[in-house]
Amino acid sequence: MRIWHPCTQMKDHEKHPPVFIDRGQGIYLYDREGRAYIDAISSWWVNLFGHANPRITRAVGEQLSRLSHVIFAGCTHAPAEELATRLLALVPAGLTRVFFADNGSCAVEAALKMSHAFWRNLGQPEKCRFIYLSNGYHGETAGALGVCGDRLYAAPFAPLIIPQIEVAGPECHACPCGKTRETCDAECFEGMQVALDANADTLSGVIIEPLVQCAGSFRMHPPVYLAKLRRATQAAGCHLIADEIAVGFGRTGSLFACEQAAITPDFLCLSKGITSGTLPLSCVVTTDAVFDAFYHDYADDKAFLHSHSYTGNPLACAAACETLRIFEDDDVIAANKPKIAHLQAAVRQRFAGHRHVSDIRSTGWITAVSLAADPEKGRPFDERDRTGFRIYREAVKRGALLRNLGDMLYFMPPYVITLQEIDKLADIALDAVEAVLG
Amino acid sequence: MRIWHPCTQMKDHEKHPPVFIDRGQGIYLYDREGRAYIDAISSWWVNLFGHANPRITRAVGEQLSRLSHVIFAGCTHAPAEELATRLLALVPAGLTRVFFADNGSCAVEAALKMSHAFWRNLGQPEKCRFIYLSNGYHGETAGALGVCGDRLYAAPFAPLIIPQIEVAGPECHACPCGKTRETCDAECFEGMQVALDANADTLSGVIIEPLVQCAGSFRMHPPVYLAKLRRATQAAGCHLIADEIAVGFGRTGSLFACEQAAITPDFLCLSKGITSGTLPLSCVVTTDAVFDAFYHDYADDKAFLHSHSYTGNPLACAAACETLRIFEDDDVIAANKPKIAHLQAAVRQRFAGHRHVSDIRSTGWITAVSLAADPEKGRPFDERDRTGFRIYREAVKRGALLRNLGDMLYFMPPYVITLQEIDKLADIALDAVEAVLG
Ligand SMILES: Cc1ncc(COP(=O)(O)O)c(C=O)c1O
Ligand SMILES: Cc1ncc(COP(=O)(O)O)c(C=O)c1O
Repeated sequence: MRIWHPCTQMKDHEKHPPVFIDRGQGIYLYDREGRAYIDAISSWWVNLFGHANPRITRAVGEQLSRLSHVIFAGCTHAPAEELATRLLALVPAGLTRVFFADNGSCAVEAALKMSHAFWRNLGQPEKCRFIYLSNGYHGETAGALGVCGDRLYAAPFAPLIIPQIEVAGPECHACPCGKTRETCDAECFEGMQVALDANADTLSGVIIEPLVQCAGSFRMHPPVYLAKLRRATQAAGCHLIADEIAVGFGRTGSLFACEQAAITPDFLCLSKGITSGTLPLSCVVTTDAVFDAFYHDYADDKAFLHSHSYTGNPLACAAACETLRIFEDDDVIAANKPKIAHLQAAVRQRFAGHRHVSDIRSTGWITAVSLAADPEKGRPFDERDRTGFRIYREAVKRGALLRNLGDMLYFMPPYVITLQEIDKLADIALDAVEAVLG
Repeated sequence: MRIWHPCTQMKDHEKHPPVFIDRGQGIYLYDREGRAYIDAISSWWVNLFGHANPRITRAVGEQLSRLSHVIFAGCTHAPAEELATRLLALVPAGLTRVFFADNGSCAVEAALKMSHAFWRNLGQPEKCRFIYLSNGYHGETAGALGVCGDRLYAAPFAPLIIPQIEVAGPECHACPCGKTRETCDAECFEGMQVALDANADTLSGVIIEPLVQCAGSFRMHPPVYLAKLRRATQAAGCHLIADEIAVGFGRTGSLFACEQAAITPDFLCLSKGITSGTLPLSCVVTTDAVFDAFYHDYADDKAFLHSHSYTGNPLACAAACETLRIFEDDDVIAANKPKIAHLQAAVRQRFAGHRHVSDIRSTGWITAVSLAADPEKGRPFDERDRTGFRIYREAVKRGALLRNLGDMLYFMPPYVITLQEIDKLADIALDAVEAVLG
């Protein structure tokens, strides 16, 4: 094989060659034999409005004949300007400036760099450390890996990475404080407070995935944790970086997860769904306070230097503008509500009480099902059995791209899925589980 | 302003708002008033075949209606497969595997990680250090900044970066060994050899921009330096990472710069021109030896984990396939030769002997002109005068986007520029210089 695929042990492909996708339409991906697969995970959580969405396709096509790309230093263009205007009207109040990058990892890198350089420009260069949550995931470039709680991604590259400060994140599926969603007041925040106090002098900021740690096995926490974190970071005099790369643009039910806690972070990182899953694009949205720390006479040497050749790519910006127009025109957040309820119920109906299901949890469009050999006794499957992976293979056979995360299945389909298709997807998932475990 | 532009002191825009580009056609960018600008730097060195190139536009448009994107773990698609096949037929012999990423910085990150993890998988985890050249530039994520010789980009973020090992690179514009291109046998390589010897036990690899350090003030070195580096890294038992992100795809006259030294690196990083300047895409091309070190049973935990949501984006791959088809169909490398000669001569004719020109140098399509207050006495302009920046502003007024790099002008136009347009561009450049310095 010529291509080395990401996040893949290539030897697996000896037995299971990659699915050769020929085209996409709505929630379906089609291989070269014409077999259809429901894109149950929105192609790594990026697709919102279906493949070959006619509005997105038209918008990108029009931009294509006008201007595919232009250097974004010294120049600007309509798609970026419209996108910035639209975004700033939608993000939490107080966020006023948009800095573009190409993908999620680079947005995180830019946010970390901006945060530290802010303090440096203000005469506090010692503020250079970051707190992140256990099981957090923020991308795979060296800076982003330094704030990755899931050490799976960082451990093989340890000498290339400056490890930041890890704090135990919420573990709501097995609350160490014995609380439930109803009784929770984020009692587990205590550990974070201790770390904030202990590192106050050198802290640049705290980075978090609001509400759902997606790559971190879909751990979910309540908004009150976010609200406490906002207050505590403010009190500690450090930044709050909200990485909504995965959860932004409606995944958690609201347009941005931060809304559910009614907070404004100092940095909001966005990517993935921003182009509705068509093109790489990311941005860091930030405040006047941050912007002003870099706004100086040229000779003062305080500009924020971080650029990519394709920063602000007009084609990607055009896809993003159309994405936001669809949100507005179709009142997507409201229209999603019954679908979200149906998806959560459909999965629960089939998997609640299943002898191998240890936990089902949902936040908005995201529903995860943890599997175990013996849920009662807390006994996981033997890793070597690769149970989750085998279920994924069975689901593919049955027409759903339902990629596992370890021994966990999760559902995160495009928003254009119908109620019937949700049922079909849930049926396939159950069939696949039974085929492996039955 | 809502948008925070890259590589820009935003306060500069108080006086000089960014040029609002409306559309592009061939070598021209047009603003909203219909004014045309020659894209003299190919929009940060990415554009090869002109804006709105009909072939690229059609290829991307066709792919757009088929499949914009699909997860690249577990799936593959025709544009990526064709691109890998085409690339592997063109790169130096021995490079056999293609790993995709989204932009240049991420390709460099992936190469550094792959290099170190290779040694780790082979039981030599202590091999984790990298040598880079002074004035080298490899991107602005934390790992890439660790191998940036131009500390301008790294210094403000020092506590976030693991600095690697810097070796003085060639300074051919003022050869410390007193050689010329004709007499040079890369005598300056000695410092590199010393560093290779001193760090042999812990070295993972050496990273270099073959032939031209673009962001590093367009320092240019002869192929013999590369050839020595290949032999020496092999002898030292470490990798050679060739970062051809800027110089690849014909910029130096040959398709890849490495060809001029007849070498095969262990990692070849490509981006920028790969899509002919339309969409972000990058890749790391590597060898079977590297691939095999990761090719194991799943349980051995040796897979290379590095992924981006948009890895292998089909739209970008379609643009890249068409780019390579154009190279083949139009025999671009041969067709470029007279244009390259004309560009080099046109600049020399106008600037050689100019009272403020301290150096003119060329490699293929890249020609740089260094300016100084008094070239004879080696006295630079006062930085505060921002001479280069003012010339850039004057060139923009005259219809050329000729972005300066400090007090240096450089020419790196799209390959579709005509001989007449080259003359026009050179005239504008001289006019702009005279307007500021006359
Ligand atoms: C929360 C979060 N942050 C950052 C990233 C990295 O984004 P990218 O894959 O585009 O580099 C991801 C990707 O999955 C993510 O889920
Ligand atoms: C040699 C080299 N490497 C890496 C990069 C970084 O690429 P990107 O800007 O796409 O992150 C550049 C960009 O200018 C470059 O010139």
